[in-house]
Amino acid sequence: MKFLRVDMKTKTVKTEDVPPAYRGLGGRGLTSILVNDEVPPGCDPLGPENRMVFAPGLLTGTALVNTSRISIGAKSPLTGGIKESNVGGTVPAALGKLGITAVVVEGQAPEGELYVLRIDARGEAALEAANECKGMRTYALVEKLLGTYGEKNGVLCIGPAGEFLMSSASIQSSDADGRPCRAAGRGGLGAVMGSKGLKALVVDLTGKSPDALADPEAFKEQAKAFAEILRKNPFTGQMMPALGTAGLVSAVNSLGAFPSYNATQGTLEGWEKVSGEALAQMIQDRGGKTSHMGCTQCILHCSNDFVDEKGGFVTSSLEYETIWSMGGMTGIVDLDAIARLDRLADDIGLDTMNTGVALAVAMDAGYRPFGDAEAALEMMEEIGRGTDMGKILGNGPAAVGKHFNHHRVPVVKNQSIAAYDPRGMQGNGVTYATSPMGADHTAGNLVGQYLGRALDPLSPEGQVEASRNAQIAMAALDCTGICLLAGTVLGNPKVLDVFLKLIAAKTGEDIDAKGWGDMGIRVLKAERAFNRNAGFTSRDDRLPEFFREEPLPPHNKTFLVPDEELDSIFDF
Amino acid sequence: MKFLRVDMKTKTVKTEDVPPAYRGLGGRGLTSILVNDEVPPGCDPLGPENRMVFAPGLLTGTALVNTSRISIGAKSPLTGGIKESNVGGTVPAALGKLGITAVVVEGQAPEGELYVLRIDARGEAALEAANECKGMRTYALVEKLLGTYGEKNGVLCIGPAGEFLMSSASIQSSDADGRPCRAAGRGGLGAVMGSKGLKALVVDLTGKSPDALADPEAFKEQAKAFAEILRKNPFTGQMMPALGTAGLVSAVNSLGAFPSYNATQGTLEGWEKVSGEALAQMIQDRGGKTSHMGCTQCILHCSNDFVDEKGGFVTSSLEYETIWSMGGMTGIVDLDAIARLDRLADDIGLDTMNTGVALAVAMDAGYRPFGDAEAALEMMEEIGRGTDMGKILGNGPAAVGKHFNHHRVPVVKNQSIAAYDPRGMQGNGVTYATSPMGADHTAGNLVGQYLGRALDPLSPEGQVEASRNAQIAMAALDCTGICLLAGTVLGNPKVLDVFLKLIAAKTGEDIDAKGWGDMGIRVLKAERAFNRNAGFTSRDDRLPEFFREEPLPPHNKTFLVPDEELDSIFDF
Repeated sequence: MKFLRVDMKTKTVKTEDVPPAYRGLGGRGLTSILVNDEVPPGCDPLGPENRMVFAPGLLTGTALVNTSRISIGAKSPLTGGIKESNVGGTVPAALGKLGITAVVVEGQAPEGELYVLRIDARGEAALEAANECKGMRTYALVEKLLGTYGEKNGVLCIGPAGEFLMSSASIQSSDADGRPCRAAGRGGLGAVMGSKGLKALVVDLTGKSPDALADPEAFKEQAKAFAEILRKNPFTGQMMPALGTAGLVSAVNSLGAFPSYNATQGTLEGWEKVSGEALAQMIQDRGGKTSHMGCTQCILHCSNDFVDEKGGFVTSSLEYETIWSMGGMTGIVDLDAIARLDRLADDIGLDTMNTGVALAVAMDAGYRPFGDAEAALEMMEEIGRGTDMGKILGNGPAAVGKHFNHHRVPVVKNQSIAAYDPRGMQGNGVTYATSPMGADHTAGNLVGQYLGRALDPLSPEGQVEASRNAQIAMAALDCTGICLLAGTVLGNPKVLDVFLKLIAAKTGEDIDAKGWGDMGIRVLKAERAFNRNAGFTSRDDRLPEFFREEPLPPHNKTFLVPDEELDSIFDF
Repeated sequence: MKFLRVDMKTKTVKTEDVPPAYRGLGGRGLTSILVNDEVPPGCDPLGPENRMVFAPGLLTGTALVNTSRISIGAKSPLTGGIKESNVGGTVPAALGKLGITAVVVEGQAPEGELYVLRIDARGEAALEAANECKGMRTYALVEKLLGTYGEKNGVLCIGPAGEFLMSSASIQSSDADGRPCRAAGRGGLGAVMGSKGLKALVVDLTGKSPDALADPEAFKEQAKAFAEILRKNPFTGQMMPALGTAGLVSAVNSLGAFPSYNATQGTLEGWEKVSGEALAQMIQDRGGKTSHMGCTQCILHCSNDFVDEKGGFVTSSLEYETIWSMGGMTGIVDLDAIARLDRLADDIGLDTMNTGVALAVAMDAGYRPFGDAEAALEMMEEIGRGTDMGKILGNGPAAVGKHFNHHRVPVVKNQSIAAYDPRGMQGNGVTYATSPMGADHTAGNLVGQYLGRALDPLSPEGQVEASRNAQIAMAALDCTGICLLAGTVLGNPKVLDVFLKLIAAKTGEDIDAKGWGDMGIRVLKAERAFNRNAGFTSRDDRLPEFFREEPLPPHNKTFLVPDEELDSIFDF
């Protein structure tokens, strides 16, 4: 249990005990509460006063499956509010196994200097000059860093977009095969890392000093039970390995809630060509991997390896949200093109969602035609080069809308929505509008309830309550390090009970369902407090007007949840 | 007393009696209260829901000198809040003489269509197609329009910047010589006009149906007295005709409060070369006009005609704020270059202040060197062509700062400060921070008090009170149509008394000093209400951090007024 405090100005790293106020916290709970405590809400997100927190989940580093997950928190240059973005790969579990509760990065390196934070197998850390990495894309960078430090290392890093301080810049995380293809995409945290002069964290994967478990026997038993539950659950045990998240393409198109052509249609013409089924078939025919372990200790294997016609590796993993943003929103129904766009996004270090939507807004404004894959690839290269237009595109949909004076910009708090239209899934619209994170499906996604017919997606009734419950549950879940897909099983009270026993066996403190909810509420309250102090009001908890004004085919509904209901969502 | 309601969608103009709620209001009082009543605070400033109000002052159209002044109001695309920008020229008096209390422009013309609103000598109005004016700069445009409609017309119009919907776009007003050289510059209202598809208002100057005066005899007597006061006052009667507003260059440099090189210095190296004295000498030597009547009924003649070495007309009027923004902020100590930049700004239709500061931020970020006049002229032409970089520059300092990730951006609510540094004139900093208009010297300028040693410019003491009183007085003054420079005499209670008698003789309702203050407070309250409903909080009433962190030479002071004091300013 220790904090690493990294001061970029003095280039020193201090190890300290976890301060009492942060004990028992992990993941998003730790990042959000620390950011709310330590970051001046009015500060420049790209200035020296902002702080970045890298915090593995409470259960990360234990033997529990699917817990190699890290939360990264800071004030966001995209939303201007608090941000947590989490990612898998290998670094999260490795930090957990080193007993590192959080890495807090403060200050800024002098202009033009670039550093790598190296954390060795004993958990000791130092900043090492890395000016030779300046401008490097992430695939080449990770290859170079693993060459220098050895294959048994994991990397969190930024590409050119982060160095250019673009608002869509991601932090890429290396996967089990040592490729930087998993992303903490949202909120432009790559730009914060760039502003600090930090190109990468390189973490030894062989550490063996995790925090002790309070009750190792109970933990072992419940961990085994939980893994068994995941294997037997049809969604986590079958659909994920078979189709990955891309399985949702057909389902959400069937529901008419797949925002297409910059959210002017709810069904994508030709969605069959980019469905999870088509993707799996194509990968199989070409000899790629339809299923693959991306993160340490993962048993779901939602990941895939997309290969080109000759079997050459293109990208991993091609996921639902990227197929939507780079394909559905732009009208590009071509998996090869989408895969190349995804690879470019990973390589340049960009959120695929915010970036795909930025391209779509540019297309909708008439800059390039919908469906033009070559134009999309060229726009990505502009971003990678940091040209004037590249910067505009790399700053996301709101910047593009401003540049072209185009009104149809599907963002909340400047962050793009995800692959569920608020008019076709009203509750997801509530989450987009009200989440302290800006529009974010992972903050409280109701797609499972709509597919299961537990809730009418087109009626305004009951959506605020459903979104509230989902947001509280997700805020709690994001504290633990369990991956979101594995977390889908926690809706079952008996399964939640197993999970809470795991937490208790780790921490030594009992927790029941109410305590679980309280944890989520505590996190949301800290996040809302930060945003309020940064100047956010209920005005910021709104969808763009066009969602209320332009009906979405095929259902021809608008977003119907009243403002007053939105404003009541966090009356805890 | 009538409203013209112009619907750009249906291309119809309706005449209606002034609605009871707006009777007795004029100028900024009318625009702000109407905008707060009729414009949805959350609307897109460049969308169909925004409304533009053109309202001459209460006394405009009467025989009182220096009252050809019109307020233009709308939601601002620059600040996102309410905006009033006022301008002189010939149209304001002409509208007053036609008995037109306000022109309210609603809706939007179909994309690609452009119109002129023609108001004839009987006060009848119609929209006329003007697609042939598309893209025209303002000098050529006004020449063309006066050719079509006759010399005895006045014009309010936009240039390419307004058509490009840039956030620094102005509305240019033709002067007594029929040149579009006076500007309602602030807040990007030219972009709002562009978004509506309205290229120009062309108003017949020969109208003779002003509203009746309640007491014509008393009005005549007090109007004569007021003109006499102006003629005898040293500032309005002597300094303005001699040096114009440029006389402030030497004074404010002496005070060390002239923001130079993007507000990194309080004194401009070589300010003597761009002082009012140098300007007057140069114009005189070349055979230009050092003094000139820009607006109908003006007796101050603050205007000038700047000519080149061969005596050819360049621009009118070269003013203090422009010498500062295009010269002081950019380090260009060359009146010929500044005059050409001013001419380009008028011709393209740009706020000289927001634009000069945008160039300065780009220079400070390293894009071009300080002092490089050719680079500045090229940047202006980029704006005029609407290139990618031109749009960024034309959207003002905040957009430029975002593009280059440069932290030193002297704006409040996205609008640039004026030629008085908040560190060298603390009270002007209070006005910039708290005015509902964004940073705006005309909202409450204390330079007169500092020059007269009535207030210490470097101490935080007493500044909030002084700014409050100035803001209330200006809000009231902006209702009347009296020009700001003439209004400087109202600080004397006996003179204010004369002025209040003029208002009473016009309206038939007595008004005392308290009623005068109440009028200002009513306006400020409406403006603050609009901004609050648009999502503004006390967070928005702040100067950028660098003013608190970077001391300004030569006094090496920072901005010292505490936040809590700022927040108390409108506790009416």
